[in-house]
Amino acid sequence: MEQEQLGRRNMLARTSLALGGLVTLGSLQGCGSDSSTSSTTPTPITPTVADFPYDKHIAANYQLDPALVQEAAYHAYYSGGCCHGSFSALISHLSATVGAPFNLLPIGFGKFGAGGIDSYGSICGSLLGAELVINMIASDTTARKNMIWELMRWYETYAFPVYVPATVDPAESTTLSFTGGTPTMTPVAPGAHLCHASVSKWCLANAVSAGSGDKKARCARLTADVAGKAVALINAYLAASPRAYGTIGVADPNAKCDGCHTAASAVNPSVASDMTCVTCHPIAGLPAAHPTVTP
Amino acid sequence: MEQEQLGRRNMLARTSLALGGLVTLGSLQGCGSDSSTSSTTPTPITPTVADFPYDKHIAANYQLDPALVQEAAYHAYYSGGCCHGSFSALISHLSATVGAPFNLLPIGFGKFGAGGIDSYGSICGSLLGAELVINMIASDTTARKNMIWELMRWYETYAFPVYVPATVDPAESTTLSFTGGTPTMTPVAPGAHLCHASVSKWCLANAVSAGSGDKKARCARLTADVAGKAVALINAYLAASPRAYGTIGVADPNAKCDGCHTAASAVNPSVASDMTCVTCHPIAGLPAAHPTVTP
Repeated sequence: MEQEQLGRRNMLARTSLALGGLVTLGSLQGCGSDSSTSSTTPTPITPTVADFPYDKHIAANYQLDPALVQEAAYHAYYSGGCCHGSFSALISHLSATVGAPFNLLPIGFGKFGAGGIDSYGSICGSLLGAELVINMIASDTTARKNMIWELMRWYETYAFPVYVPATVDPAESTTLSFTGGTPTMTPVAPGAHLCHASVSKWCLANAVSAGSGDKKARCARLTADVAGKAVALINAYLAASPRAYGTIGVADPNAKCDGCHTAASAVNPSVASDMTCVTCHPIAGLPAAHPTVTP
Repeated sequence: MEQEQLGRRNMLARTSLALGGLVTLGSLQGCGSDSSTSSTTPTPITPTVADFPYDKHIAANYQLDPALVQEAAYHAYYSGGCCHGSFSALISHLSATVGAPFNLLPIGFGKFGAGGIDSYGSICGSLLGAELVINMIASDTTARKNMIWELMRWYETYAFPVYVPATVDPAESTTLSFTGGTPTMTPVAPGAHLCHASVSKWCLANAVSAGSGDKKARCARLTADVAGKAVALINAYLAASPRAYGTIGVADPNAKCDGCHTAASAVNPSVASDMTCVTCHPIAGLPAAHPTVTP
């Protein structure tokens, strides 16, 4: 059934993979006795990595399989971190089911994103990995922004982790029970999309360290949760005709703030951000005269 | 002189560009009467995008030209934002001087990163664009982390903007003077690597809005500053033999915090982050009993 969703070009791309790895349709077209091109003007390889964004290379009615991506993302966390988890799981699945240009990309590209980009504590790597792939796919820039915003807002308020792996990874070692036993792991909504805040808050609530096996088990499952949300967003985008993602499914957390702190205001401090404001700027910490309800 | 730094493979890659755009050395090698491969087992294209990281494709003694990259980054800001500015300037320069695989990449890939990833206010896009390229180049993962950490720490404390373009972009429109006239633009150190904090703080200090032409002129110049710092880091990495980047050139801003809030501690809240702590957690805001000097 999966193959029925794929066009001829994608089937050829899969055939080229079967012929021995990283070989593209362009190579098959450009070489051999039936080639119509000369040796001095080879045919550009199609689909190319540069032929971006890539939704044009994805057949109508194609959908990613969330269960396969989530389980792969969970395990890939243990071989390269959170960004590698979501990035490699999505790209591997797209490589196997769509083919080029996804099978021409470096599968390990996301390893740098672990721990909020090489452990700096910036954007959660599982988000960054997923967003790199959303950026690859969505040619509609409004849809791309809406998908990314929904993913970030959802992340801020979702009590992680939820995903239960089909097979627990051999590298996993925990003191908490992630499946309802005791001592029980407590899921926590991060309140922010940053690795630093997300990890520190969960560790504090669970009285474990950021270097613990429990933290790793949490982040591996969180990576699967984020990859699953990304699949849902991408599938919704691909299923729309014409392809689009029109409405962000999580309410604006900053409705009370944005009315005064607009991007056009130079009087009230001007803010250009959709990150949840009150996590880092709690109402209780604002000056006494600061309005708490308006607009 | 620039050509003297390039190996044969890179010269061939440049030749292939001259033959009509996106054509790779692999295509030239794999096709034609002198090919030793059969039509059913084409030679993999080399260097490929998947053959990552890419420092192996960069000739010894190669160095990027900071002035060219900075001016390109400044102007590219106006055609696609901060992440596009740094990413496209670096990739375009590497494409023109190194060739494959850089000339096989989508030049517009960084546009999604504008405004802290599609205006969400996350990591400054000029940083993200530069870090995507550092990740492409540095095969030494310790060096990659050190370069990224230095870039982020430097960003937090650098009074932006400094860069003065050779030619002011036609899209630029300001009310402040960026060249010493009046009213004078005030450079500001962001204190954080996030777009939201960086932009908001600068706008507040300069009494302009985040939607103003002044803000855009600031961010365009900041993009050039960041691209220039990235060039310095990459050039230092490439010049080392063996290639390495061993020491972060900006002091750890969290030395007072890290001794207690270790990644191994479950008693003191455990923190896994190198972001500057006191920007968001000022000492004055901590509980009265909190140590301010130790360890």
